[in-house]
Amino acid sequence: MRNVSLCTADAVEEAFYEAMQRGNLEAMMALWADDEDVLCVHPGSDRFVGLAAVRESWARIFRHGRVEIRRTDVRAHTGAVLAIHNVVEQTLSVDPRSAASAGVQVVECIATNVYVKQAGRWRMMLHHSALRQESAAAGERLH
Amino acid sequence: MRNVSLCTADAVEEAFYEAMQRGNLEAMMALWADDEDVLCVHPGSDRFVGLAAVRESWARIFRHGRVEIRRTDVRAHTGAVLAIHNVVEQTLSVDPRSAASAGVQVVECIATNVYVKQAGRWRMMLHHSALRQESAAAGERLH
Repeated sequence: MRNVSLCTADAVEEAFYEAMQRGNLEAMMALWADDEDVLCVHPGSDRFVGLAAVRESWARIFRHGRVEIRRTDVRAHTGAVLAIHNVVEQTLSVDPRSAASAGVQVVECIATNVYVKQAGRWRMMLHHSALRQESAAAGERLH
Repeated sequence: MRNVSLCTADAVEEAFYEAMQRGNLEAMMALWADDEDVLCVHPGSDRFVGLAAVRESWARIFRHGRVEIRRTDVRAHTGAVLAIHNVVEQTLSVDPRSAASAGVQVVECIATNVYVKQAGRWRMMLHHSALRQESAAAGERLH
């Protein structure tokens, strides 16, 4: 992995999305806090708790290749040892049933990312991403 | 609303789910931080930013009545002025197409809740809830 400076939560977040874009499992896992409570929820997945489970979840995703993703519209709240970012993730998704170029579409997710400061370095503590939907209909049905 | 002590993030969270169970909009909104960046994502909804948008999103939900919900399996990280809880939400969902009792099912969501301490009181800053799915298949497709 590149020599990444992890002196701000924002730098960790940039490196996080870069690791996804490169499909680089070691670069990804180097960003996570050394904490048994790290927690990760991918779009449409269950939650994974602990470094081993989080690593295995990313390994499964990267087996399909790298992820064409970029973050936009970041909303951040930063404390002394915790930082929270809520971001819109734009992912290029390929529908294998469609013809090549016509089958590529941008899928948006909303993600909440939590960073913790440990020994002067920020690390990822939680990643919770879910499909964004323009309509509130589903939410109204559930809560 | 009841006179709720907001001296811990956990107390705010209890009051939050109680307000949903009672369908009480004023009790709900009394728990949110006085901050233009408050942010709320309901299951299957877009994100709502700012107190007016968050209030309107809850008003729409409560128009359908109260929400039968309870939180389980809380994972918490608490700093001096920020606290993060990730919880499993169990919601009773009624399918109107089914016969009465057979149409009731428990739907699970995963939620990340962020609390901020303002003037000695904890308030809600962010609520991000999305459907829980046992399979990672969808996540593998997207990222």
